[in-house]
Amino acid sequence: MTYAIGVDLGGTKLHVGVVDQAGLIQDRRLVPTDVQGGPKAIMKQIVGSIQELCAKRAQKPLAIGVGLPGQVDPINGHVISAPNLFWTDVSIRKELERDLGLPVSITNDVRAATWGEWQVGAGKGIQDLVCIFVGTGIGGGIVSHGQIIEGASNSAGEIGHTVIQMGGRLCNCGQKGCFEAYASGWSITKMAKELIVQQDLKSGQAILALAEGVLEKVTTRQVATASKNGDPLAKQIVDGVIEALIAGSVNIVNTLNPKRLIFGGGVINGMPELIGPVQEGIKLHALASATKGLEVTLAGLGSDAGVIGAAIFGRNYLL
Amino acid sequence: MTYAIGVDLGGTKLHVGVVDQAGLIQDRRLVPTDVQGGPKAIMKQIVGSIQELCAKRAQKPLAIGVGLPGQVDPINGHVISAPNLFWTDVSIRKELERDLGLPVSITNDVRAATWGEWQVGAGKGIQDLVCIFVGTGIGGGIVSHGQIIEGASNSAGEIGHTVIQMGGRLCNCGQKGCFEAYASGWSITKMAKELIVQQDLKSGQAILALAEGVLEKVTTRQVATASKNGDPLAKQIVDGVIEALIAGSVNIVNTLNPKRLIFGGGVINGMPELIGPVQEGIKLHALASATKGLEVTLAGLGSDAGVIGAAIFGRNYLL
Repeated sequence: MTYAIGVDLGGTKLHVGVVDQAGLIQDRRLVPTDVQGGPKAIMKQIVGSIQELCAKRAQKPLAIGVGLPGQVDPINGHVISAPNLFWTDVSIRKELERDLGLPVSITNDVRAATWGEWQVGAGKGIQDLVCIFVGTGIGGGIVSHGQIIEGASNSAGEIGHTVIQMGGRLCNCGQKGCFEAYASGWSITKMAKELIVQQDLKSGQAILALAEGVLEKVTTRQVATASKNGDPLAKQIVDGVIEALIAGSVNIVNTLNPKRLIFGGGVINGMPELIGPVQEGIKLHALASATKGLEVTLAGLGSDAGVIGAAIFGRNYLL
Repeated sequence: MTYAIGVDLGGTKLHVGVVDQAGLIQDRRLVPTDVQGGPKAIMKQIVGSIQELCAKRAQKPLAIGVGLPGQVDPINGHVISAPNLFWTDVSIRKELERDLGLPVSITNDVRAATWGEWQVGAGKGIQDLVCIFVGTGIGGGIVSHGQIIEGASNSAGEIGHTVIQMGGRLCNCGQKGCFEAYASGWSITKMAKELIVQQDLKSGQAILALAEGVLEKVTTRQVATASKNGDPLAKQIVDGVIEALIAGSVNIVNTLNPKRLIFGGGVINGMPELIGPVQEGIKLHALASATKGLEVTLAGLGSDAGVIGAAIFGRNYLL
């Protein structure tokens, strides 16, 4: 069996997998990322996991692909910045190749997940698609004419920072009115806390009760649960999230006219029921010429998309 | 000299040109479009103009490309709808080919202009660019990895209907908060009229004076002139247009990460000075990873982009 190694290097977890030609994970290692140890410690973790996984196999892997939450130089794989890892200007590709004796390619984690969903997930066989990953933040991956859109400096797909409300809510990026400031994990928690403080305590009780009465402990998951239980405040927040998801999606659909729009990420996994109203809203608010034939679906690979996609990226990069 | 014929079929003017291999117009016909006569009358105008232009030349054209303001089927060139021509489900390609004995290709007018700017205008030699045409409405053309992005149903580039203000101003498309409802020719005129009526007459005087005192005669050009003359109300409108152009552009830049952003269309031609503040605003509000190396420029072909681009499209379509 030929295989590639996929590495999904996150700010909290390091996920390394043996991915076969069909895109299935045959074996894996999952460890907490040693962020405090810095690039050297993390590289050691990556090398160790890969060597462990490969030692059990008759063949060497064809290639290694790494996806990480940051901006990567498309030519040499240099990591320009990766805030969640506290990395700026870090080079790991050549070092990994030297230690492993294998070709290594580095890409952005959202780009890797898009490769996964496109090649073996919910986008299989589709030439024009956009993946929208709604997690702590919002990221996107674009496939057009059967090609991943990278952009001039490998930064394409930053849909979380498209403006849906001029002068609106402050985003983590420092700008106002970003898509991400209305529909991401961090913004849902922030909006919930604001509303609980602003409104009388009674209206916030349902959410607070789930957070053991501690405002600082409020999570996106609790807001989702309270909304499902019929709590009006939580429902108000979720309705706002749906409205923002529709606006952000309309912008993508009218700009790119994809055949398929694929929703993934932690927030969507926790509230897959959002997909119905979002799909309806897109059909209602985007241009008819762009929604004719449009399919809106959930991602297919869950949290494995990053590992699988990184492996596929690594293999494809060689070609 | 080998050449192609470009046809820019607008709601008011029909522009037909002999376009040489360098993308230069060697000869042209410009007539008012016989919209009232319907498809048959317009086809007669097109055939007549082309025959006139070709009769003077030793060689036949290589191909004919037609750009028109509507939605076109990418496979057979069937016009699904073209509101400004009052066309729905109109087929002209086969008819033109029969009458002219030459290969004809049909595309959208904004797509045609993008071909022109990309191949021989302000985007020459660039592999990743977006053209933003701000005229009566706002349309866009996207080139990525050296390919025009058409989308799954040939509708990509409808950036005028991206949402920059959820629940905002009503757009001609029936939706709220579209880019076009804040920065296009029609919306500038509409906003001016609204503000003149809402505010005390004195503040609207400068614009009204240019419109011979008649509210209904107010035009985008007059708003631009009054703003240049220092009129506060006109300046307020133009400042809003700049803000919207920045938001709409930020969305494109963060989503697609183009190397070059090209602004054309009547509103920009009338106020080329907008490009400075818009460029500054994009650099300030889009992600640093996406604006590094970004160039913001004016379109190079003016109102010839449609004819030149249609000819290039026609020639390329054959290949």
